[in-house]
Amino acid sequence: MAVYDDLMAFQRETEALAQVAGRLGWDQETMMPRGAAEQRGEELAAMETVLHARRTDARVGDWLADAAPADETAAANLREIRRSYERNTKVPATLAAEIARVTSVAQGIWAEARAAEDWDTFEPVLANVIRLRQEEGQALAGGGDVYDALLQDYEPGTTAAEIEAMFTALRPGLVALREKILGASITYPELDTEFPEAGQLQLSEELALAFGYDLSHGRIDKAVHPFSSGSGLDVRITTRTSLRDPFNCFYSTIHEVGHAAYEQGIDRAHLLTPLGRGVSMGVHESQSRIYENQLGRSEPFCGFLHARMEAVFGDFGIDDPRAFYGAVNRVAPGYIRTEADEVHYNLHIMMRFDLERALISGDLPVADLPGAWNERFTADFGVAVDRPSNGCLQDVHWSVGLFGYFPTYSLGNVYAGCLHEALRRDLPDLDADLAEGHTGNATSWLRDTLQRHGGLYEPRALIARATGAEPSVEPLLAYLNGKFGALYGV
Amino acid sequence: MAVYDDLMAFQRETEALAQVAGRLGWDQETMMPRGAAEQRGEELAAMETVLHARRTDARVGDWLADAAPADETAAANLREIRRSYERNTKVPATLAAEIARVTSVAQGIWAEARAAEDWDTFEPVLANVIRLRQEEGQALAGGGDVYDALLQDYEPGTTAAEIEAMFTALRPGLVALREKILGASITYPELDTEFPEAGQLQLSEELALAFGYDLSHGRIDKAVHPFSSGSGLDVRITTRTSLRDPFNCFYSTIHEVGHAAYEQGIDRAHLLTPLGRGVSMGVHESQSRIYENQLGRSEPFCGFLHARMEAVFGDFGIDDPRAFYGAVNRVAPGYIRTEADEVHYNLHIMMRFDLERALISGDLPVADLPGAWNERFTADFGVAVDRPSNGCLQDVHWSVGLFGYFPTYSLGNVYAGCLHEALRRDLPDLDADLAEGHTGNATSWLRDTLQRHGGLYEPRALIARATGAEPSVEPLLAYLNGKFGALYGV
Repeated sequence: MAVYDDLMAFQRETEALAQVAGRLGWDQETMMPRGAAEQRGEELAAMETVLHARRTDARVGDWLADAAPADETAAANLREIRRSYERNTKVPATLAAEIARVTSVAQGIWAEARAAEDWDTFEPVLANVIRLRQEEGQALAGGGDVYDALLQDYEPGTTAAEIEAMFTALRPGLVALREKILGASITYPELDTEFPEAGQLQLSEELALAFGYDLSHGRIDKAVHPFSSGSGLDVRITTRTSLRDPFNCFYSTIHEVGHAAYEQGIDRAHLLTPLGRGVSMGVHESQSRIYENQLGRSEPFCGFLHARMEAVFGDFGIDDPRAFYGAVNRVAPGYIRTEADEVHYNLHIMMRFDLERALISGDLPVADLPGAWNERFTADFGVAVDRPSNGCLQDVHWSVGLFGYFPTYSLGNVYAGCLHEALRRDLPDLDADLAEGHTGNATSWLRDTLQRHGGLYEPRALIARATGAEPSVEPLLAYLNGKFGALYGV
Repeated sequence: MAVYDDLMAFQRETEALAQVAGRLGWDQETMMPRGAAEQRGEELAAMETVLHARRTDARVGDWLADAAPADETAAANLREIRRSYERNTKVPATLAAEIARVTSVAQGIWAEARAAEDWDTFEPVLANVIRLRQEEGQALAGGGDVYDALLQDYEPGTTAAEIEAMFTALRPGLVALREKILGASITYPELDTEFPEAGQLQLSEELALAFGYDLSHGRIDKAVHPFSSGSGLDVRITTRTSLRDPFNCFYSTIHEVGHAAYEQGIDRAHLLTPLGRGVSMGVHESQSRIYENQLGRSEPFCGFLHARMEAVFGDFGIDDPRAFYGAVNRVAPGYIRTEADEVHYNLHIMMRFDLERALISGDLPVADLPGAWNERFTADFGVAVDRPSNGCLQDVHWSVGLFGYFPTYSLGNVYAGCLHEALRRDLPDLDADLAEGHTGNATSWLRDTLQRHGGLYEPRALIARATGAEPSVEPLLAYLNGKFGALYGV
């Protein structure tokens, strides 16, 4: 055990340093003075140098060679440390540093290019990012599939082939449902008045608490793009307000509370160990999505929210709770992924998945991306993209090298469908709870069956364990067909 | 130059990491969720481990041995790096770690003991802290004076003998002035109404900007004990509000702006180098004090503040600007150092200086501290201390091992006196500026003559360079006698 203990003591410090680096990111998006960016870049680079040195420290290799796990937890810790060590030692330090430097600059250029509708400036930058990530993927793959190798950073244990099979199973049902809804005669109103920010923030905090967010181990601030940050005893979320669109605020908050509740729900025994964080992006997204959609956008919870909004804002033009539920869940095609409804969302992801695999394999030259994007978008959504910011410049992901990340969003939706089916089976009175704004039984179920384990089990095994069945797309499709079929009479 | 460049590249990362660690401290006092303390302790300890390893890295010793400075800046950088390297390598790592651990716990025990008026619980804790700092001082002194060795952490290049000589010169004038004022018949009013927090914070920010604080490289938050934090492009301050005492808010803000303006005023060329921070605690305090007292508590600036307070708060019971000036500068003996007026403040410090030297030398056993404190306080202030929280439990410093820090407060006051004399000589129209709330000429003078140099010159040399004369207590005494003589007609 001495070897394992030495390794874990070292790892514990590394985990603490990673939390510090993560909090710098939080600070940057919420608190940092605008003139501090240059210095912050150096601070982040210094932290990355320290972390990289620790993650590739030869002692870790020696400890891993000698450590024998005494139990399931120790075995899982060793699995995660080994995964990190191998991943980091396979990539030359110079390449890792160049990727960090290039993507940091690329993000800024992307933001300017998006604002200026300027694909041409961004194209060579993206080409460079892709080249570097291809090189990294080759180093990681060791002769295997490069995209699969990149995917491991976000969804360990999953392959592109598995995701492709999942999308193949999911797509026809989504397309059929979409077509039925777009042909339906039922429509729902949109919000059409102003909602003062103070009321939005007050109700946002109320919703966060209703969904079990623990403010003694977290805090809520505003950010341009809402996010959740941190693990263990300090898990912070952000939200945003939009004067005419309070749903943006409320559902951003509930979504981020889903991520944060996962981190806050992990057993204290895993604090500052490799198991003390959410196990994958897909599982993380399953939590944010089930909080936001299956619970937060359910008819009974919408009834509760409707009453609270009337109490806070007075009459805002939608009196009927059923119409309000429809307004929250309006289905409408749109250019922007992050604004997509539950029916369209995964179609956005499938498109990105296919395009980014082609970019990484080299089948799709970067110069051809706008054309390929627009062709696919027209095929899937029935309209051409009108400008780059509504098309292939809309997402930050590729600019910062996140290839392999997009599919985890849909994986999260599929997992959320599985979890929701099991949750409904175990909690037959859930709707009565939600109508009162009580999510406690549902969130306790999620904590007990899934969240508390942190990184103990691999993603698919974790979902199977929580639901009693292998993950599949059927529960999500059944949920969407039931919910939107009823809403649109189709 | 290659050796020097390698050293500086390494040092630059260390400086960046030190900024990160400092910002964790800022976060802890302003933003951190209350339940995160345990994890934060591990994060800080991990950062300290990293920093200590870098500061004692054998490569630094090798580089220092081989590097030849090409110019004045390089020589100063090498001087500061060498000072840090020698300081950190002289102290055994186990002792440094024990001091970090013990003082972290001691601070909590001190806070509880102060709240409970419980000297007995704190006594053994303080004894342990002193024992460890004595041991550290012996390691640093190498046979020389232990207190002098500790002093170097806060005021490099200064000895206790020099400070004692300064206090010997300063004390009679202060005592004489104090006695005259306490015998005077003129009195000034106290504030006696409530000042809403929003107005205090609004005016506090206005004052910060008036004194040149750069919010694009800083921010203002609330904290229980106001402080300034960070160097370079990210220098944050905090303030506090007190419903019936807005002066506490305003002069805390101006004081912290003095510290922050020093950091913000350092030449960009020194960013993330050992010269990119204030050179000593004494010089730092000279900036906060001259902003707060010689400028902020001057009669013309008080006239400006009076008008602004009437505009923000309406009639608050003091109509006459001269009476307001007197209220800002009321002289009254009190138990608490941090609430002391300009006449009494340095008497508090002299007492702590004598007591802490006796504690470190062993001449004063810890058990005898309350008695010695009360005896000295009665002698100096004419009354006995009524309870420990008004006596030797009032300051946090000793609980966290800060022996050698107190005298730098008075050193700062003396330096502020010297700088103010020179400033008045160079800016004959200063009062007209201050009456309008314009501090720009004064703060530019301070930036040009002193702040921009950062750590380039040693403290005393820096003051001499800025003022054209060796530092002495005469300017401070002349200023105090002039100001308070006029206020009290003595």
